[in-house]
Amino acid sequence: MSKGIKILVTNDDGFHAPGIQALTEVARQFGEVIKIAPDKPQSGMGHAITINSTLRIEKMSNADGYEAYQCTGTPVDCVKIALDVIMDEAPDLIVSGINHGSNASVNVIYSGTMSAALEGYIEGVPSIGFSLLDHSVDADFTAAKHFVHQVIEMVLSKEKLNFCLNVNIPNQPLDTIKGLKFCRQAHAKWQEEFDQRKDPSGRPYYWLTGHFVPFEEHEEDTDLYALQNGYVSIVPVNHDLTHFKTLDVLKGWME
Amino acid sequence: MSKGIKILVTNDDGFHAPGIQALTEVARQFGEVIKIAPDKPQSGMGHAITINSTLRIEKMSNADGYEAYQCTGTPVDCVKIALDVIMDEAPDLIVSGINHGSNASVNVIYSGTMSAALEGYIEGVPSIGFSLLDHSVDADFTAAKHFVHQVIEMVLSKEKLNFCLNVNIPNQPLDTIKGLKFCRQAHAKWQEEFDQRKDPSGRPYYWLTGHFVPFEEHEEDTDLYALQNGYVSIVPVNHDLTHFKTLDVLKGWME
Repeated sequence: MSKGIKILVTNDDGFHAPGIQALTEVARQFGEVIKIAPDKPQSGMGHAITINSTLRIEKMSNADGYEAYQCTGTPVDCVKIALDVIMDEAPDLIVSGINHGSNASVNVIYSGTMSAALEGYIEGVPSIGFSLLDHSVDADFTAAKHFVHQVIEMVLSKEKLNFCLNVNIPNQPLDTIKGLKFCRQAHAKWQEEFDQRKDPSGRPYYWLTGHFVPFEEHEEDTDLYALQNGYVSIVPVNHDLTHFKTLDVLKGWME
Repeated sequence: MSKGIKILVTNDDGFHAPGIQALTEVARQFGEVIKIAPDKPQSGMGHAITINSTLRIEKMSNADGYEAYQCTGTPVDCVKIALDVIMDEAPDLIVSGINHGSNASVNVIYSGTMSAALEGYIEGVPSIGFSLLDHSVDADFTAAKHFVHQVIEMVLSKEKLNFCLNVNIPNQPLDTIKGLKFCRQAHAKWQEEFDQRKDPSGRPYYWLTGHFVPFEEHEEDTDLYALQNGYVSIVPVNHDLTHFKTLDVLKGWME
């Protein structure tokens, strides 16, 4: 591993989340780390950017002496401002997470963690989002850190390739996880169940809740199948959203 | 056109934007319209959803007597709450826009207009996002309305198909636009140029600005090429982000 490797570390759970501390610890084993994260939780922010208001960044001190910032914006803002304002040259790798909760399947669309990684990929920097299938603040990142290390080591050892990887890690003890599996994104949706309440004046308001409806959990090449069977799932993600199969159908309409 | 057709109309520029008024006028020619839009501009919100705070919806009156609501959330929230709370059954079609400004190429990723349409598609409802290549509030929607009508008429006349379409309309007089063209998304990126300023206390803050860098504007099958050559571009959009070409390369790593 070259000492010259530079890694940008970000997330969507916020600067002080345990998941990004775990990720930073692992990333520092590979080279110089620059950390930038939102100053508050930004889960579910998708690919949002801040265009109607301003951004601030604040340099944060830490005992280990690496460069660290918190930013008032979204996860995608963090990546943009790091690349344009903070860093003189692009990093070799961007890592995002470790997210507290799954970003497998359709969750990738809503995820600030994965949108930060996707933004890095759009900017031409290989990027990886890591997520642990445990929502809790006091999640145990022991097994996750092992596989984060394994994935970063693998990508740095291969020929240079631009990619965005969505890595999800099952919430189970390290010795029961069977290894890494490259997969496609399983089709699924969230079925909304808005929780309607009344405020003290009697006016209604809503909390967004819902349950996850998988359509392809039994398809062996999907991320959901891999996770249910004790593997770490790795899905390469694209910023080209063209639905080529539908495009063929539509072109037929014109004939 | 059956009288029974129900169309949900939404946008990201907000309830009072001229673009959604134009879209609503056209949609009402095809059937019953329900309008729900954010109570403030939500451009650049991507696929953000509101999970850390609450949502409110407010019924809005209008001279034409169709059902209309504004919502405190994001464009994706609007679609979710319309489908789960407001409507008894799913609409036949969701239309989003008409956006003030282009959502062609990589803009689709950042666009609240297109994320609302994509959410509809994930929920199983055929959905179309419309955008006019003019950012201004007083944009002229005359030509846009013509093509919105043409596209809605076309999709309602075909066999039922689930899709999400990203429709962009050149900002030029109706009689100079050559027609509709089905395309793929051109690769491009935004090159950030953060505008750094000082507040009255001398502390720095930033505005996100940038310029658009097209990589494929000369590729004839792309949306950027179509638009530059006077066509309305139509790109079918997918919520499966799997990068299958990269997946093949990665699987090779394991051999």
